[in-house]
Amino acid sequence: MRTLTPANSKNVLLTDGFLGSRVHLNRELTLHQQYARMEETGRIDQVRLAAGENVTRRCHGHKFWDSDIAKWLEAVGYSLAAYPDTELERLADAVVDLLEKAQEDDGYLNTYYSTFEPDKKWTNLRDNHELYCAGHLMEAAVAYHEATGKRKLLDVMCRMADHIDSRFGREKGNVRGYPGHEEIELALIRLHCATGETRYRDLAAYFVNERGHSPCFFQTEAETRGEQVRSSDWRYWQAHKPVREQDEAWGHAVRAMYLYAGAVDVATLTDDTELFEACRRLWNNTTTRKMYITGGVGARHTGEAFGEDYELPNSTAYAETCAAIGLVFFAHRMMLAEPDGKYVDILERALYNGVLSGLSLDGHHYFYVNPLSYDGKAPFFRGESNRRQKWFGCACCPANISRLLASLGQYVYSTNNDGDIYLHLYTASEASFQTGGAKLTVTQETDYPWGEEVKLTVQSSDILRKTIWLRVPGWCADYEVSIDGQPLESSVHRGYLPLQRDWSGTTVVDLTWRMPVETVAADPRVEAVRGCAALQRGPVVYCVEQVDNDVPVSNLVVHHGTQWTVDYCPDLLGGCCSITGDAYAIESTHAKSLYASPACLDVQPARLQAIPYALWANRGNHAMTVWMAYDRAGG
Amino acid sequence: MRTLTPANSKNVLLTDGFLGSRVHLNRELTLHQQYARMEETGRIDQVRLAAGENVTRRCHGHKFWDSDIAKWLEAVGYSLAAYPDTELERLADAVVDLLEKAQEDDGYLNTYYSTFEPDKKWTNLRDNHELYCAGHLMEAAVAYHEATGKRKLLDVMCRMADHIDSRFGREKGNVRGYPGHEEIELALIRLHCATGETRYRDLAAYFVNERGHSPCFFQTEAETRGEQVRSSDWRYWQAHKPVREQDEAWGHAVRAMYLYAGAVDVATLTDDTELFEACRRLWNNTTTRKMYITGGVGARHTGEAFGEDYELPNSTAYAETCAAIGLVFFAHRMMLAEPDGKYVDILERALYNGVLSGLSLDGHHYFYVNPLSYDGKAPFFRGESNRRQKWFGCACCPANISRLLASLGQYVYSTNNDGDIYLHLYTASEASFQTGGAKLTVTQETDYPWGEEVKLTVQSSDILRKTIWLRVPGWCADYEVSIDGQPLESSVHRGYLPLQRDWSGTTVVDLTWRMPVETVAADPRVEAVRGCAALQRGPVVYCVEQVDNDVPVSNLVVHHGTQWTVDYCPDLLGGCCSITGDAYAIESTHAKSLYASPACLDVQPARLQAIPYALWANRGNHAMTVWMAYDRAGG
Repeated sequence: MRTLTPANSKNVLLTDGFLGSRVHLNRELTLHQQYARMEETGRIDQVRLAAGENVTRRCHGHKFWDSDIAKWLEAVGYSLAAYPDTELERLADAVVDLLEKAQEDDGYLNTYYSTFEPDKKWTNLRDNHELYCAGHLMEAAVAYHEATGKRKLLDVMCRMADHIDSRFGREKGNVRGYPGHEEIELALIRLHCATGETRYRDLAAYFVNERGHSPCFFQTEAETRGEQVRSSDWRYWQAHKPVREQDEAWGHAVRAMYLYAGAVDVATLTDDTELFEACRRLWNNTTTRKMYITGGVGARHTGEAFGEDYELPNSTAYAETCAAIGLVFFAHRMMLAEPDGKYVDILERALYNGVLSGLSLDGHHYFYVNPLSYDGKAPFFRGESNRRQKWFGCACCPANISRLLASLGQYVYSTNNDGDIYLHLYTASEASFQTGGAKLTVTQETDYPWGEEVKLTVQSSDILRKTIWLRVPGWCADYEVSIDGQPLESSVHRGYLPLQRDWSGTTVVDLTWRMPVETVAADPRVEAVRGCAALQRGPVVYCVEQVDNDVPVSNLVVHHGTQWTVDYCPDLLGGCCSITGDAYAIESTHAKSLYASPACLDVQPARLQAIPYALWANRGNHAMTVWMAYDRAGG
Repeated sequence: MRTLTPANSKNVLLTDGFLGSRVHLNRELTLHQQYARMEETGRIDQVRLAAGENVTRRCHGHKFWDSDIAKWLEAVGYSLAAYPDTELERLADAVVDLLEKAQEDDGYLNTYYSTFEPDKKWTNLRDNHELYCAGHLMEAAVAYHEATGKRKLLDVMCRMADHIDSRFGREKGNVRGYPGHEEIELALIRLHCATGETRYRDLAAYFVNERGHSPCFFQTEAETRGEQVRSSDWRYWQAHKPVREQDEAWGHAVRAMYLYAGAVDVATLTDDTELFEACRRLWNNTTTRKMYITGGVGARHTGEAFGEDYELPNSTAYAETCAAIGLVFFAHRMMLAEPDGKYVDILERALYNGVLSGLSLDGHHYFYVNPLSYDGKAPFFRGESNRRQKWFGCACCPANISRLLASLGQYVYSTNNDGDIYLHLYTASEASFQTGGAKLTVTQETDYPWGEEVKLTVQSSDILRKTIWLRVPGWCADYEVSIDGQPLESSVHRGYLPLQRDWSGTTVVDLTWRMPVETVAADPRVEAVRGCAALQRGPVVYCVEQVDNDVPVSNLVVHHGTQWTVDYCPDLLGGCCSITGDAYAIESTHAKSLYASPACLDVQPARLQAIPYALWANRGNHAMTVWMAYDRAGG
């Protein structure tokens, strides 16, 4: 049922441009910095302790630290596949060696439990993330093996998977448990794809299918620990009903995204159409009722969780960076199952906005929380700063961004069983494919998402009759395509334009599209932005940051008649397009009165400058808003 | 420093009309129902147990139950003062007898601790509400004594106050503690005013002034209990700094309101101008940055607490009924300290909107949480129903509304030291005053807040040279006053129009004001309602409820040019003015897309009908919103 196969990221090099420059900074700086943080904070020491080595300072350990190390290892794997780096490989190999030593004889691997609480293993799947850490290490193992050819971590994690398989499941004597934080489901599928071992696929299917049956495993497990469980609301863990019966995104958003992504994998690899229907429902609920315009998901701070339908507050948005990354995973797998540009539209929305806002331009500061409005004063994360941070106590986001950036190539292209190629993302890049016995290379020259042109150079080592499917983004209403200068007559099928021909030698495909500034409104049921509009151009959502504007950004009113000007500014925020236009501003003359009529509606002309949302908060502490009051008839 | 003395509510009878009918229902039905609930839920049994009586069924007890009983007793007191009711008095007397028996020899009174955890008394002021319960019982004692002349509960609570006085304070050997939930501060002031005992005033001053010093008492106290305290953020308890240094409303909103009200009392009765300045700052912050248009305060569900400045979400508003009541207390005391109509404007806003929304028209269902927007589906309180409830596990709101309604008379008038009379609230009523050796009665005939006229009949038993100050509401831009048919020429001073003359015999004062429908906008820093407007008429905030409207209320757009029609509908919601007008509605044709441009902005003409916000949710489960998208130039 899985229709497409993603490109191997080592065969797709992002050369430069908006995404490419981020990928390079990730490799050259971010991954090194992250390793240093993991040393400083004792994360690597915990692995050393588990491996039986001495460490020179006290380490209290943490139950989830293996997942940070795993995501970093996974990122290093992808990065090495495309760009050799002796230092990174040496660091990673050393960590892999330690992990191998830390593995127990029965295959068990968790550096916290082995070191600090060996008698508490598998006693609290709900809260303690053992299966989650194992899943991330499996993903790392697959990535590291594919990149370097080194099997050590892959073998270690197969033994751990076997250990888990021997412990959990519906078979007699096994524990019918499943993880509190999902991740192992999609990881087991990756292990299955890398090794061909069907037990891993079946174990993933077990974890997805066991979840949510009544009585809830977490209840039984807690009672075994002697704990009283008062609540019977298991939505936080997506365990309130069987996954195949679910139709609304609930609970902790990262967990939900990872579960849904894993469920798509299980559904497609086990031909489970009923489960896939549930994934479609969850997709529709997530993206048409519970997603910010930035692709951020999980509106609530409490529980880092989804709110009700259309509950999308701005200044108090949680919109965790990891959750937007999870939406990329979910979107990618839906697209692989049933190729449709609508999935990539969401993937691109999340990537260019809610994911990249999580990383500073300097490459080593991170947002955990991504609000869409900020008053310049209030801290917006658990009383912490309103700046991007170098690290977090719970540091899930940093290495998650890094592994996504390092693996971006796989999202740019995929292939189907006929060897046809799907081009999903436009970004300056060089890709190569082995298909139909020939080698095909595709070079993208573009300054997307700023420019309106993409030049594709396709080179084939032989005469090759294949279709290249070009995605026509959902925001694109007007485009032209020519092949070697001849206009293409072709019609879009589910968001893709088929270029079917005999490819041979060098072919140049030119795409041109109109990329106007769009004034976007939300479904009026989103009461937080009722009466407001946001600016978007191509896939990029814009915001107004105080540093660029004379009047308070909270007071700006955009209107129907505004003429927008788009300028590429090479010196602004690493090079980006800014948007300027004539708006209004409400006069703040009624500061003594919170509610007033109607003098407070007096407005004055005001010049507005907007920048890409993902790039805000890179120039100090300034107020910001994505949504502005909108006057439909003004101008 | 306290300038005004509130009227005794027994001398101000609300006769009929919007407020009066609520007062009568409260007396005739609500107070009886509440007693029944307290019996059903074991609250009265807990008092019986503490009094040494046998009860026939198991009672687990609850630390805060005394406060529910106290608020009910206080409400009964006010009610009896104005309207004799043998049955209520019998029930109340019986409870008072039990409370007297429950009092320990040293004066201690708390029916939970005496019965269930006698060894835990005074071990956790932060969480366990002993001082809070005592405060409510003191308020009840004062009210019951003033109403009935019966001293029993007053004497009991003086002994408890003496017990507390002997235990807490800065004197050597005393505990320098203060309550986690404020209430006792204002209660001790009431006890002081009722008894003349200055120790009670000084103890109230101690509690206000000790709060917030470092190290925090709650830290020390927790360590004494052997607990580790991780957080040093004491804002939830308003204990992050000394009260006189505070300038921002923080933490649990009900606690904050009760503290600020008590602090005003302490400041005015101890001539503490520095403390009063802090009260002014807290007032300004609360009412110009952290208050809903309904007078609701405490935006956040988490901690039932204030959010940041301008953080006022609608569908997820907490806006606890008790907090709006607390704002009435705070406003009332500020007004008594420095007569100014601006305080009564807020008092009236809270009363007519955020308080009364807490009570159903049938008089025995309650909202704990008062959102300003509701989608017709999602539960809006801790997963509970979206309907008003008969009772709550933590049932602070029901009896709080009842005691406010039963004591409303005191808010209608007050007097100053010269015997002048201030008329604060317009409502059909009969009041009498002893002033200057004569008896003055003031009868208000009006259907305020619906009508535009008030007829005051002033009768004096003698020739009396006094000033009657008539409040000119902040919303009122255009009014006429005549005395015995002669237009009055007088100018407004701090929101009040002075009628200075020799009153003798019968004088008729006619007030007429224009009460147009106002389209109100919020300070644009309130990002939740940016681009939106609400409708208000007089003190009444309106909302659109789905049952009255053909198009989804979320989609309505009001505009500058709308002509509003106001109709008094005797059969609608117990009789009220509804507002109708021609608005627009956004077409929901893009249901598959959460964000769209610009087709989703297409609008169609739509008829809008609005009802008073306080009266919503009395006709079943329907979507509702106070704020609608606003088009400044439309129409």
